[in-house]
Order: sequence, then C-alpha cells, then structure tokens
Amino acid sequence: MDEKIDASNKVQTIQMFINLVLFSRSFSESNLFPRKGFQNQVQVKNPNLETMEEDILYHLSLSTKTHNLPEMFGDIKFVCVGGSANRMKAFAQFIHKELELSGNPEEITDICEGTDRYCMYKVGPVLSISHGMGVPSISIMLHELIKLLHHAQCQDVVLFRLGTSGGVGLAPGTVVVTEKAVDYSFQPQFEQVVLGKVITRSTELDEEVASELLQCSSELQNIPTVIGNTMCTHDFYEGQGRLDGALCSFSHEDKLEYLRKAYDAGVRNIEMESTVFAAMCRVCAAVVCVTLLNRFEGDQIKSPHDVLVEYQQRPQILVSHFIKKIFLFYQQFVVLFSYN
Amino acid sequence: MDEKIDASNKVQTIQMFINLVLFSRSFSESNLFPRKGFQNQVQVKNPNLETMEEDILYHLSLSTKTHNLPEMFGDIKFVCVGGSANRMKAFAQFIHKELELSGNPEEITDICEGTDRYCMYKVGPVLSISHGMGVPSISIMLHELIKLLHHAQCQDVVLFRLGTSGGVGLAPGTVVVTEKAVDYSFQPQFEQVVLGKVITRSTELDEEVASELLQCSSELQNIPTVIGNTMCTHDFYEGQGRLDGALCSFSHEDKLEYLRKAYDAGVRNIEMESTVFAAMCRVCAAVVCVTLLNRFEGDQIKSPHDVLVEYQQRPQILVSHFIKKIFLFYQQFVVLFSYN
Repeated sequence: MDEKIDASNKVQTIQMFINLVLFSRSFSESNLFPRKGFQNQVQVKNPNLETMEEDILYHLSLSTKTHNLPEMFGDIKFVCVGGSANRMKAFAQFIHKELELSGNPEEITDICEGTDRYCMYKVGPVLSISHGMGVPSISIMLHELIKLLHHAQCQDVVLFRLGTSGGVGLAPGTVVVTEKAVDYSFQPQFEQVVLGKVITRSTELDEEVASELLQCSSELQNIPTVIGNTMCTHDFYEGQGRLDGALCSFSHEDKLEYLRKAYDAGVRNIEMESTVFAAMCRVCAAVVCVTLLNRFEGDQIKSPHDVLVEYQQRPQILVSHFIKKIFLFYQQFVVLFSYN
Repeated sequence: MDEKIDASNKVQTIQMFINLVLFSRSFSESNLFPRKGFQNQVQVKNPNLETMEEDILYHLSLSTKTHNLPEMFGDIKFVCVGGSANRMKAFAQFIHKELELSGNPEEITDICEGTDRYCMYKVGPVLSISHGMGVPSISIMLHELIKLLHHAQCQDVVLFRLGTSGGVGLAPGTVVVTEKAVDYSFQPQFEQVVLGKVITRSTELDEEVASELLQCSSELQNIPTVIGNTMCTHDFYEGQGRLDGALCSFSHEDKLEYLRKAYDAGVRNIEMESTVFAAMCRVCAAVVCVTLLNRFEGDQIKSPHDVLVEYQQRPQILVSHFIKKIFLFYQQFVVLFSYN
C-alpha cells in the first residue's frame, strides 16, 4: 500500500492495532501453537522431526528436501479446510476476489497436483485445502498440514473448517459455528488409538473466534447463524440415525428419540470431522458448517441443486468476511508503521 | 460370440460350467446377498427402502427417479473399489483392455461426475469406484453402492478392495490378500455406533476367493503374494505407530513392540478401510493390498515414484486376472448353451 493515511485516521488505526494484538494473542493460547522459541510459531509435538534429514509429506506430495517450504508457505495466516476439492477451489477463487489480490483467480493452481488425495490452493495469506470425508481422512491431512506450517515457520495461524452438515432443529441453510465438538455420546472429547490403547483428547475450540464469527454474520445479509454444539460421527447412515442406509435396524421413533437427546445436549448439527479437527488444532480454530436439511424432518438431501450450492457458499462468505476484517487490520497496521 | 466350439472342447467347457456353478454358489453365502425372493440378488437389510418413493444416492449423484439403475448397472458382476480416484480410473482402463471389450478405454466417463466425492467407471461387467481414505469415507460409498446394486437388481456380485498398505515384516511390493480384517487390538471385528450405542460386527471374508486369488498370483510373473491378516486403523500416524506425525508421544521401542505383537497375531499389513468393507460386504468380498514399505524398517514412504506406481499396479493385475478367468468361464458357458 503506497498512500499515506491522514492524521484523522491515526487514532482509529492505533485502536485497530490494539485489537489486532489482542486478537492475535488469543490465538497463541493454543496447545499446538505455544510460545516456544519462536514467538507464536507453529509447533509440532514430536521431537523426532528435528532429527529427520527429510520429511516427506506423502499425502500432500511435498517434502522438505524437494520444496522450499518457508518460501512457499511462510506468509500463511489463515488456513481453511473443507471436504470437497471443488468447493475448496471455489473458496480460493472467492477469497482471491474478496481480498482484491493481484492476478487472475481463475488461474490458481493445485499445489498438491502430484497426488489426488487432497487439493491445496494458496491465495495471499490464505491456504485452502480439501480433506475428504470423515475423521481418518482429515486427520492424515492435519498431521501433514501442521508439519508443513511448522517447517515453513508460519506464525499466528488461524484454522477454519468450512463444511456441510445435517441440522438438528434448525431451518436448512442455517450456519452453525461450533461451540463444542462432541462425540456420539454428546461428550466434548475425541478418542484416539495410540499403539493399541485408547486415549481421550479435549475438543475445545476458541470461544472468541466463534463469537467474532457470530458478530460477522450480523454484518452480512442472508447468513442466518447460530452458535451450538456439533456432533461428529464416524458414519453418515446408522451413526447419524438415518433410516435410508443399506442397513437399518431401528425405528423412526428410535431415531427421533436420539435426535431429541442430542438437541437437549445442545447439538445443533451433525457432521463427520469436527472432533479430530478441534483436538488437533484447538483454540486457534473454528468450525463453520451450514445445515443442508433439518434431520427432524427427514434423512435425504432433497433441496434443488442451486439451493444447495447457495447454502454451501454461506460458510465461505462468513469466513471470508472474518478474514477480510483481519487482513484490513493488518494492512492498516503496516500503513501505521510506514506513516511513523 | 458367434463361433461354435468344437466337440473336443465340450468336456472342458462342461467342467468349466461346473466350476462356475460351484464358484458362484460360494458367493451366495453372504449375509448381504442371501437367496431371498430373487436368486442371489443383492439385498439390503433395510425394510424402509421399499416404501420410499425416491432414493437419492446423494454422494454418488444418482437417484432412482432420475436414473434407470437396472438399465445402467443390471449386468454388473464385479465391483472393485480403491482409495484413489486416479487409480480407479486407471484400473477401469486396464480391465477394459484385459477383457478385450469394444470401444476406446481412454474415453470412459465418470458416472459420478455430478459430484467430486467419489468417481465411478463401468467397464462391461466391472464397476470401478473410488472411496477416499478411512472407514467413514468408504462406509458412505458402500451404503450407497449396496443400495445401487439392489435397485439395479444385480445378481451374484463379487466385491474387491484394491489398495495400498504398510507391510509388517514383508518386503515392499508384496501383495497381501486378507484372511481376516482385524482392529487395533487384532480382533476380527468392526465397532459401529448405532444411535449412540456401540455394536460389534464380524469382519470375516471369503476364504475360497482369497485362496483362488493366491492361486492366480502363482500364474503371474512378479506378483509376490501372501495371505495374512490386515489391521485396519482410523489414523495413519499415531494409530499405526508412526514416529513421524505432527504428534508423537511414544518411543521407537514402543513402536517396534506394537508391530511385533501385530505380527505375532498374524497381521501382515496395515491400512484404513478393510474392517468396515468386510463387515458390510462379508463373504462375497476380498481385500487385496500391496505393501509400500516394511514398517519394521521405517515410517516414511521413500521409494521412487516409478517403483510405487509399479507396486500399485500389482493388486490391479492380480484381481483383473481373477476377473478374466471368471469372465471367460461365463463366455464359454454362454457358448455351451448356444452349442446345444
């Protein structure tokens, strides 16, 4: 940015700077991103990585030997992940336009083109990555993403999961910002098997980022948004109480009873990745999913294609609004220093 | 096939017919494909489906209302599934050539092009489908695939999972045909949550198909094959005892001890989908995975790209040899009837 700001804006800019510092401080509370060595640098919890001559991020088709990761990714501040490869490409193109970056958004290329497991696009300070469906699929990507951010010496990174979900007592199209990611028994925990033993991890998410996202939704048209618990299951049919799978051994009443219990426990939507995302990214992360149907009213996703496409854009619009606000703070912060 | 066979081949053809009948009888023992109503027709275990006006197979972008499923899929006899979309397209093109079908294999189209969740190719009697990574991802596809085969009134279908895996005490490139799909505690079971309750399902697979596949491998060059147990985990890093994830809290010795226990329990490879595949498809199905490394010797997949590509073709070559044998039986069976 070349222009100088005028003095009347200086007070406002200082206020923005203070907000920025307060905001970024909240990200540093994460277990994954503690202040150790480098301030707010992305840290891994694995001492073995320091002694490895090369780290091959197999499922991303990247490696510390064949790629200059700090040069490629060192300026990343926001990571957005979602299940569908097409949707994450569309998001990358959308945020490119929203941030008014130079270059043609239609010409962005898939950084992981050496593999078809995931796709990845970098747009200024934003990384957009697909993760497939279910906890195991996103977990492989998150291990390699966190190592990538660590090797690239990224600092103060915020992560968002943008997804679709089944709503519990909400009108289709409602966006749910996750307060707690809970398991099938409505507990905010993630069970992980390590060498044959089951351990339990917390799935807390950042309350401040969640309420900031709710605030963002009120600044936008047509993005009905609530904060609520998100239930994460390992199965789309029996695990979510659907009556229309290849296997079903329970009644319509049994299903409704389970959904009512979930609702009473604060669950407002059901998806398949939030617990491991929260467990691995913790308080520097948010989960933002739109509901495609109200599960009290049915199991099949019957809305017309164009309606579903519009619903799926809502988490993208909300998160991009959030990112844009921070990005503008940051730009004004740079201007402030150039002014002084 | 227009030509008549000569009488000297007739005895051999009758023998082939008997083999075919014996072979296809073994498929009918499956829990999913019992002799009910239609002989050996693919059956679902969900009475609700009969009363549904439309069944939208959402993740396959197909529906009973918008697609004529019996016409599109009624002749399917073999279903091959695998994680990678590119690999399953390559398999479809490969089996097209192997079965010497008419048309250009380069021109096959993705039946699920309306979605990027899975891809699906039909080549004569063979369906080739991708399923992504992990139990939840393959489980969504299997629910919708089994419903698809049911709606299409398919009969006597055999299912194969073709995949990659980590080897346990085997040279890289070895193909493992699964005897039992076991969980992290080496038990042949799959835990499924239904309405918040954990139930356990058996993961038995067809022994005869497995031993027939072993026989096939002996008829081929350079497809080293063993029968062994396959451990299915929900995580690639901590769950499989890898030391190179973003999180690792155990030692090299702890890892080796776990792998030794797995080896002693008959585990010869580790992957991420076999238990739910076995639980849902049972005795009409086989799991055939190549090992990309020996986990006793490391965690990272370091072989050169061309070596890995060649390894990944091995399950495809083995299963296509198996399919070709049955397909030729079937063709000769047709000839036998036209002769009489």
